[in-house]
Amino acid sequence: MSEGVVAADQLRLFIERIERLEEEKKGIADDVKDVYAEAKANGYDTKTMRKVVALRRMETHVRQEADALLETYRSALGLG
Amino acid sequence: MSEGVVAADQLRLFIERIERLEEEKKGIADDVKDVYAEAKANGYDTKTMRKVVALRRMETHVRQEADALLETYRSALGLG
Amino acid sequence: MSEGVVAADQLRLFIERIERLEEEKKGIADDVKDVYAEAKANGYDTKTMRKVVALRRMETHVRQEADALLETYRSALGLG
Amino acid sequence: MSEGVVAADQLRLFIERIERLEEEKKGIADDVKDVYAEAKANGYDTKTMRKVVALRRMETHVRQEADALLETYRSALGLG
Repeated sequence: MSEGVVAADQLRLFIERIERLEEEKKGIADDVKDVYAEAKANGYDTKTMRKVVALRRMETHVRQEADALLETYRSALGLG
Repeated sequence: MSEGVVAADQLRLFIERIERLEEEKKGIADDVKDVYAEAKANGYDTKTMRKVVALRRMETHVRQEADALLETYRSALGLG
Repeated sequence: MSEGVVAADQLRLFIERIERLEEEKKGIADDVKDVYAEAKANGYDTKTMRKVVALRRMETHVRQEADALLETYRSALGLG
Repeated sequence: MSEGVVAADQLRLFIERIERLEEEKKGIADDVKDVYAEAKANGYDTKTMRKVVALRRMETHVRQEADALLETYRSALGLG
C-alpha cells in the first residue's frame, strides 16, 4: 500500500512537470503565431515565410541539391 | 429499452460502414506507398516526387505566384 | 538525351499513378466524412464514435490492458 | 530600391525572431521527451501518461460527459 502511495506521488510529479513544460511550450507557440501575425500585418506572406524558415534550417549543400532535383523534375513534367 | 436496442443497431451499422471505408482507404494508401517504393527502386527521389505532386495540384496562376514570392523572399535573405 | 526523355516519361507515369490513387483515396475520405455527418444528423456524437472505431481496431487483450492501466493512473491522480 | 532594402531587413528580422522562438520551443519539446523517458525508466507507461495529461486538460464536467458517452457507446457495441 505504502508503495502504491509513493508511486502515485511520483506519477503526479512526472505529470505536473510535463504540464508545466507543455504550458511553456504553448506560450512560445503563441509567440510564434504573434510574430507571423505581425509580419502579415506588415504585408508579408506567412506561407512563404514558413517555406523560408524551413529552407534556412537545411544545410546549404542539402538545400542546393534539393533545389536542383526539384528543378529537374519540374522541367521533366513541364511545370515551369 | 426497445429504442436503446434500435439505437445500438444503428450505431453499429454506422461504425461498420466507417470501418469498411477506412479499410478501403488503407488499401489505397498502401498502393500509394508501393508506387513510391517502385519509383525509388527505379532511382527517383520520392521527397521531390511528393513536392511535384503538390505543385501539380495547384492552379497554374496560384503556383506561379507562390513561386515568384518565394523567389523574392529567398533573394532578400540571400538563400540562392 | 534519349535517356532523359525515357526517364521523364517514366517519372510522369509514376506521378500519374500516384495522382489517380490519391484521388480515389480522397473520394473514400469524403465518404467517411459523409457517414460521420449522417450519424451526427441522427444524433450520434462523432468524437465518441472515433474513439470506438480506434478501440475496435485494437486486439481484445491489448485494449483490456490499456483500459486497466488508464484506470489505475486515473485513480492515482483522482481523475474519477 | 531603398524601400526593397528596408523590406528585406524587416523580413529578416521577422524570420530571425521566429527562428529564435522555434529553437526555444524545440528545447522545451526535448525537455518534455526527457521527462517521459525518465518516467518510462521508472516503470511508467508513457502512452497512458499522455492520455492522463489530455484528460486533466479537460474541464471536469466535459470530461465526465465524454466518459459517460464513451461508456454508453462501448456497451452498445459490446466493447467491455
